[in-house]
Formats: sequence, structure tokens, C-alpha cells
Amino acid sequence: MSNHIDFYFDIISPYAYIAHKKILKYKDIVFNYKPIYLGGLHKLAEIDSPAFNKYKLRNNINDCNLVSEKNNIEFKWNSNFPINSLNIMRGYISISKSKQHEYLNCFFDAYWKNNQDLSNVENISKLLRDLNIDTKEYFKSIKDQSIKDKLINLTTEAFQKEVFGTPTFIINNKIFWGQDRLEYAIEEFNN
Amino acid sequence: MSNHIDFYFDIISPYAYIAHKKILKYKDIVFNYKPIYLGGLHKLAEIDSPAFNKYKLRNNINDCNLVSEKNNIEFKWNSNFPINSLNIMRGYISISKSKQHEYLNCFFDAYWKNNQDLSNVENISKLLRDLNIDTKEYFKSIKDQSIKDKLINLTTEAFQKEVFGTPTFIINNKIFWGQDRLEYAIEEFNN
Repeated sequence: MSNHIDFYFDIISPYAYIAHKKILKYKDIVFNYKPIYLGGLHKLAEIDSPAFNKYKLRNNINDCNLVSEKNNIEFKWNSNFPINSLNIMRGYISISKSKQHEYLNCFFDAYWKNNQDLSNVENISKLLRDLNIDTKEYFKSIKDQSIKDKLINLTTEAFQKEVFGTPTFIINNKIFWGQDRLEYAIEEFNN
Repeated sequence: MSNHIDFYFDIISPYAYIAHKKILKYKDIVFNYKPIYLGGLHKLAEIDSPAFNKYKLRNNINDCNLVSEKNNIEFKWNSNFPINSLNIMRGYISISKSKQHEYLNCFFDAYWKNNQDLSNVENISKLLRDLNIDTKEYFKSIKDQSIKDKLINLTTEAFQKEVFGTPTFIINNKIFWGQDRLEYAIEEFNN
């Protein structure tokens, strides 16, 4: 039996943000954060993102507002959605492991709570400075082929485990897709 | 404030079946059953059904099994999924209103509990006989242009209300998509 739950996320996913906020309430369970690039994952799985269908998008906006409200999570649909999350996710894997959780909290909040435009380099730089992350090193790292390859590999590995979207939870080789399924993943963990 | 909840369904939708079974437990709330043709609705909304993506399909099968188990609902993924539900949904609107609920219970169970092949006319005929529905009249009715038009109109009307999938619940002009959202729809009803 697993002693943790794997949590696959991309910062661009509003439901991953909601899942992350819900996860923070479970102090007794170890969640293993697994970064992936959602755009690449969707391509591998031949899935069109709901962001590109206006009816699904409208539903996602209403639904995220509703689910956040029901779960007492501060949330605001980003007016610059969607953006390409590739560099932000490369950034996550390029920084020191000890900084990753703080980086994630900060970038999730910036995008899904504070409506910041994270396609803007100045906005990213400001967040990095707040996190005491060297901006020069950061912007150099995310261009490194090794970092690019690492994100590709993490995304491919997720796909090989049958992950096709975010958030996804894996526990005892069982896959749970969607923030709605976090509670079932936790039941599996506690079984 | 509405005194009922509109419930949009197509018999081909496993989550509509699950929603229907959950609805049956709420004795105090009137659900207004709104038949639509899901294939047509998806076309209007330019949505590819998850049935046609192998990763989403696999997830749907696992997820329906899981959700049914958690909700104590008998369920079996149909080995003839998907079939074209057009005639079965035309049938629903062609029969007398007093028979519709029984017809729905019977066809939902046949497809999503008892693994019957409902693309087979003999299987349909047997169910109709069990329901004391005149098979000759039924098969004539579903070819009537007026019945065909009625289902098109119901589907178009649903789409105009921003319904793009099943199950969908509407209460106080608010839209809730997915069996996971039945509880929120009921909270809106009770507000």
C-alpha cells in the first residue's frame, strides 16, 4: 500500500489549483507533487482542452466559481486564460526542491486568485524576487535543454501511467481524475 | 424560485443513468425529465464525445464503476457502448406520458445494468412487450416526421439554454452539468 498520494498538476489548470487548496487541508497525508505540462499531455492523449470550446469553457468558469465557493476557496477566473504554462512549469522543476512548494503556492495564487498575467515576464520576475529566487539564473535555467527534457519526460511518464488531464491523483495504482475525486483518492489511501 | 429541477438526459449517457438513480432517492423534489439526443447536442456544441477518445473512455468506465459503487447503484458498463440512441429517445417522446417514466427505468436498466444490446430490434421489442407498449405502433411512431422534429426541437431548445452534455440540471436558470453536481442543484433548490 502507498504511503502517499501522487498529485499531477499544471499551474494552468484551475481545477488543479482547487485540488491544491483542498490538499492543503489534509495535514496527515503526504501528497507527492508531480509537475507535468498539460498542453503536451493533451496532445499525447489527443484531447482538445475545454479551454478551446466556448460552451465547456463557460461551464468551467461557472463551475470553478461554484466549487470554490462551496469549499471556501478564494478563486477568480483569470482574465488572461489560457496562457502557455510551459515556462512556468519548466521554472518549477528548475528551482531547488526546497523552494518548489512555495513557488507553486505563489504562482497558483497569482494566477487563480489575484488575476495576474503570467505571460508577462515582469510579473514573473516580481514573484521570483518575492520568493528570493535569482531571476537571472531562473530565466537561464528554463532555456536549458536538460530542463526542457525533464518536463517532457515527466509528462510522458505521466501519460504512460494513463494520466490524461489535471488534476489527477494516483494511489495504489488507481487513477482518480478531477478535483471531485480527491475524496475518493483519500478513501483509497485510508483503506 | 422554481418548484422543480429540470433534468436533461439521454439513455446513452452512463452518468445520466447514475443521476437518474440518485434522483429516485429524493422523494420530496420534483424533477422534470427533459429528453434530448446527445449525439445531436454534441454536434451543436462542437464537442467530441469522450466515447471516442480511448483515454477518456477508459476513465469513464473506471469512474462510473467507482461512483456507482460509492452510491450503491447497480451498474455494468455496456459491452455494446456506444450505440446510436436516436430511436430509443424518439421512442421515449412517442409513447404516452404516463408510460415514459417506466420506459426510462426499463431502458436505463436494460442498457446500464443488464448489459443488453439496445441496437437490437428484438431486444427492444421484448422490453416494449414487458411494458405493455404496442410494438407495431411504437416502431411506426419513431419514423413519424413529427416525432423526429420534436426530438430535434427539444435538443435545440436545450442547447439554446446552454446545455451541452448530459446529465444537466437547471434550477433558477442556473446550470449544473454532471452527476457530481446534482447535490449542488438540490442545494440551489432548497435555498
